[in-house]
Amino acid sequence: MNSFFDKLNLKWNENKFVCIGLDQADFNFNKNIIDVTHDLVCSYKPNSAFYEAEGTNGLESLKKTIDYIHQNYPDIPIILDAKRGDIGNTNEAYAKSVFDDLGADAVTVHPYLGKESLAPFLERKDKGIFILVKTSNPGAGEFQDLETGGKPLYQVVAEHVNSWNTNNNCAVVVGATYPEELKKVRGIVGDMPILVPGIGAQGGDLENTIKNGLNSKKQGLIISSSRGIISAPDPGKAAQDLHLQIQEILKNV
Amino acid sequence: MNSFFDKLNLKWNENKFVCIGLDQADFNFNKNIIDVTHDLVCSYKPNSAFYEAEGTNGLESLKKTIDYIHQNYPDIPIILDAKRGDIGNTNEAYAKSVFDDLGADAVTVHPYLGKESLAPFLERKDKGIFILVKTSNPGAGEFQDLETGGKPLYQVVAEHVNSWNTNNNCAVVVGATYPEELKKVRGIVGDMPILVPGIGAQGGDLENTIKNGLNSKKQGLIISSSRGIISAPDPGKAAQDLHLQIQEILKNV
Repeated sequence: MNSFFDKLNLKWNENKFVCIGLDQADFNFNKNIIDVTHDLVCSYKPNSAFYEAEGTNGLESLKKTIDYIHQNYPDIPIILDAKRGDIGNTNEAYAKSVFDDLGADAVTVHPYLGKESLAPFLERKDKGIFILVKTSNPGAGEFQDLETGGKPLYQVVAEHVNSWNTNNNCAVVVGATYPEELKKVRGIVGDMPILVPGIGAQGGDLENTIKNGLNSKKQGLIISSSRGIISAPDPGKAAQDLHLQIQEILKNV
Repeated sequence: MNSFFDKLNLKWNENKFVCIGLDQADFNFNKNIIDVTHDLVCSYKPNSAFYEAEGTNGLESLKKTIDYIHQNYPDIPIILDAKRGDIGNTNEAYAKSVFDDLGADAVTVHPYLGKESLAPFLERKDKGIFILVKTSNPGAGEFQDLETGGKPLYQVVAEHVNSWNTNNNCAVVVGATYPEELKKVRGIVGDMPILVPGIGAQGGDLENTIKNGLNSKKQGLIISSSRGIISAPDPGKAAQDLHLQIQEILKNV
């Protein structure tokens, strides 16, 4: 019951698919969000950048936030959205930081340096390793859509990730702003978890995300909203609204 | 005289091309390395991962190391090797962390999300933005060598970076372990600075790095060694040896 995937499956079995991006480097702010949303979510996803921007105080807030979730809601897995990626020797240090120092259950990483570089992450069997495939930003296609071997690069990355998954700890990231691409990726990665950011402030398409992204078990999605929930006047209500919208859509798929 | 490029050009005009990777999260250790090498280098390059692995203490060491260089050797530019890359909104926070909180003069970033995502870095006219093109690791080719539009992806990335360079603050990273690829990249990016890691422990080829990487002014290279210098019994001598080897090769090009 300690692995990222055990925790995630438990939440999916409770019909929970919402992930909240904890993107403000303020522990008390986060604590309030967590306390009013913990019964609705399948995961929390702090983005490291917003904590790093506040220096060592920010890092302390990040650690306190992660510790608070583990201590009070130990069944909720935490994805550290850090988008790391260096050579193998250096990724050892990043894995130590993310998993051993900060205590995250999963991390997001860049594919550009290839599988060999990611070994220090991929060998962590109990952790989730989310590889960027098709990102949510408007300019994502500049390289991700380049055609190579008769298909766009993001599909080739998805195929490679599928082949890397010998420890069953791989997952991918596809933006909710690209539902057609999500469908393609689901067709490539089987039942692998897909983290889908871009719901809310970025304008992602919830209905098509769900229709195109569910796996064969009608699960497999981590639907992430950050600003749409944490900047709402009532974050608890915003999270519940998203949860209920998802339930409504799930009735019809 | 405050921009990364002003500082770098000054060092190049002094025939200095060595960059030392400060990859140990220990301020006193770094201070010793800096004090015995400052008259030999064109840049220092701490890699963020090794500091992050030590938590907030590591981050404090990183900040103290950067501050120490700025205060004592203000003409030496600092590249923070952080390999960041997220959507634009998040890259704002990373730019704040790297440049405003930590005080680096330059940063390394991933290309995968495209130019639009990198705007918060690219708009910092006085900072150096080093985009990964061909990395030094053995498995770098898994995606970087995929053919797209009749050429390998790393060359397409180099072409795009060349077109992004309206603020004249772009630079690229090419591993010393790939001297033929370095030659191709130099042919694409004109006189743009190229950071070349992989000399020393990774076994990069110094002579071909220089022959293939120099720009039209017989400059343009930042030749980086980390473990080869900082783990040497006498780091000052190791740095001087590398500096002298470079001078010797430069006589014959």
